[in-house]
Amino acid sequence: MAEVLIIGAGVMGSAIAVPAADNGHRVKLVGTHKDAAIIAALKTDRRAHPKLNAPLPDAIEPYALDELTPALAADADLIIAGVSSPGVDWIVAQMARVLPGGQTVALVTKGLEAGPSGLRCFTETVAEGLAAAGRPASAIIGVGGPCIAKELADRQPTTVVYACSDATALARAISIMQTDTYRISPSDDVVGVEVCAALKNFYAIAVSAMWTRHQEVNPQETKPRAMNPVAALFTQAVREMAELSAWLGGRRETAHDLAGMGDLHVTVGGGRNSRLGFLLGDGMKLKAALDGPLAGETVEGVDTGLVLAPALDAAFAAGTLERASFPVACALIDTLRTGVPLAIDFAAVPPACAA
Amino acid sequence: MAEVLIIGAGVMGSAIAVPAADNGHRVKLVGTHKDAAIIAALKTDRRAHPKLNAPLPDAIEPYALDELTPALAADADLIIAGVSSPGVDWIVAQMARVLPGGQTVALVTKGLEAGPSGLRCFTETVAEGLAAAGRPASAIIGVGGPCIAKELADRQPTTVVYACSDATALARAISIMQTDTYRISPSDDVVGVEVCAALKNFYAIAVSAMWTRHQEVNPQETKPRAMNPVAALFTQAVREMAELSAWLGGRRETAHDLAGMGDLHVTVGGGRNSRLGFLLGDGMKLKAALDGPLAGETVEGVDTGLVLAPALDAAFAAGTLERASFPVACALIDTLRTGVPLAIDFAAVPPACAA
Repeated sequence: MAEVLIIGAGVMGSAIAVPAADNGHRVKLVGTHKDAAIIAALKTDRRAHPKLNAPLPDAIEPYALDELTPALAADADLIIAGVSSPGVDWIVAQMARVLPGGQTVALVTKGLEAGPSGLRCFTETVAEGLAAAGRPASAIIGVGGPCIAKELADRQPTTVVYACSDATALARAISIMQTDTYRISPSDDVVGVEVCAALKNFYAIAVSAMWTRHQEVNPQETKPRAMNPVAALFTQAVREMAELSAWLGGRRETAHDLAGMGDLHVTVGGGRNSRLGFLLGDGMKLKAALDGPLAGETVEGVDTGLVLAPALDAAFAAGTLERASFPVACALIDTLRTGVPLAIDFAAVPPACAA
Repeated sequence: MAEVLIIGAGVMGSAIAVPAADNGHRVKLVGTHKDAAIIAALKTDRRAHPKLNAPLPDAIEPYALDELTPALAADADLIIAGVSSPGVDWIVAQMARVLPGGQTVALVTKGLEAGPSGLRCFTETVAEGLAAAGRPASAIIGVGGPCIAKELADRQPTTVVYACSDATALARAISIMQTDTYRISPSDDVVGVEVCAALKNFYAIAVSAMWTRHQEVNPQETKPRAMNPVAALFTQAVREMAELSAWLGGRRETAHDLAGMGDLHVTVGGGRNSRLGFLLGDGMKLKAALDGPLAGETVEGVDTGLVLAPALDAAFAAGTLERASFPVACALIDTLRTGVPLAIDFAAVPPACAA
């Protein structure tokens, strides 16, 4: 039996406790300061998560943030960072506070940030933050692939990817977490997995916009939406993710597997990023969407796009990347920066296949 | 102005007449012996296609099969074969009857067949058939990518791929057919495009089965289906298509672009192949589905699977391919051959990413 410490009891942090508990491990689920009501509810009844809409196994141990002490974390074989992207600095601080150093940390938290030399992934952010605090992790694992939290908690089958440069730590983490329905592919392409995991939120906005932008003409049957534009933009989005993965030091192929294509597939059609896309595709202005139907929600793809934008500008100016290869990113960034309606021009999608 | 001759006035043959007509070309649309009612209706009213549910431009010229003469075909700059896969031999015979030889032929018709040395694509079938009749084509173009016929006729935007070994003929065909909404990527990977275009029907059956197999537990909101299993199997299907493309002499990358991933995206969720998948996922037996809700329909993915099956067996036996890399193909082939319920075991999906 191993011990798994999860920090963040939102839907994803809580859901990923399920495979760990199903494998018979001791699972400590710690809420953030925003998760107080969730932890209070779970302490009474593991079936009562206020946001997840799925029961958790009774064996999972819920803890409030003030219970997260070095003693609670001392025996953890695997730490899982399960907060959303704006919480990355916060979670580094928490881990630096309670971990002795030398652990394996898996990041469900996804995003990109401006780094010393352009963009960097949260795996780097976390590694650097823990090292700077004198508590370096021994291994950091990036987590990608299609994984809607509620479905994970319901034990619907899926395949995901864990990426780490330390093959031994990676194999150990997979052996702890993998079940018959939560299947984990190993990868050594940490950058590629992290870049795709962050970018899929951004691209899901644009691809989802095609669902509402292009309605069926004279629909019979029950399908009101045109699907060719969705599939066409989905393909172009994967092309762009592959380019960006390679540009940032990952592999193109990673975008063509679970972390890129697979996760984008499931992200288009569910969640906050695609809801923003539906609204933009329908002609709503960005501000109206974020202040209206999405008020108070974290739309991670927006943050990712705004971090990506200046880095792309610099790469276009330097000739490292070609603007013409990124019609989807450029159109969505225009919208995110200036609020103009999202305009996807299919005639500007470059004709050359990746092949 | 060029002249485009389309043989086959079903939904796809008719729809592809639209971009050609929009570009101002003369377009002759010839019905097969099964299309007599369609041609009769179109001769009276271009908006009256009995199956397409979209108006055709008035400029399109409908012809019955008995009007397809060498004189009608003499000036065609581009011939488009627009029948479904069972009609491939028939359309070769028709082209051999009326074409003088030396034309460029684009194949919307998709499929694989047993060839002298394993599987071969319809581009080879057609090339060989026309050559044997003393009417060799000068160039044969494979057509792939996401393209639902009604949406093409409605001018919903999409991106497709035309593949040909003759770059000049390919550029000419693209210049004839491409519009602002029907975007065409050129490719020289004819085999890869053709293999993916055929296999996507087969794989769409299995991926679509995940929609009905894995229902949401305790759904709130409006989404009754689990989406992780769909995305996970979608990714595995693309992996298998990439392997099969390479095995048959095409490129892996072609499966990761419009002809593979892009077309599979749109094929899962609409059409006869996915309808069969929904039924199989719901537990219906193959025979019950084909004799019941799908009676009288051509489910191309079934034919493709039954052609693929013995070739895969031989490759597994010879060690050219590994059975473990094809869990989706093997499971679906079991169902197609023996009628057993479709059983997808996610624990048998191989852990290694393509990356």
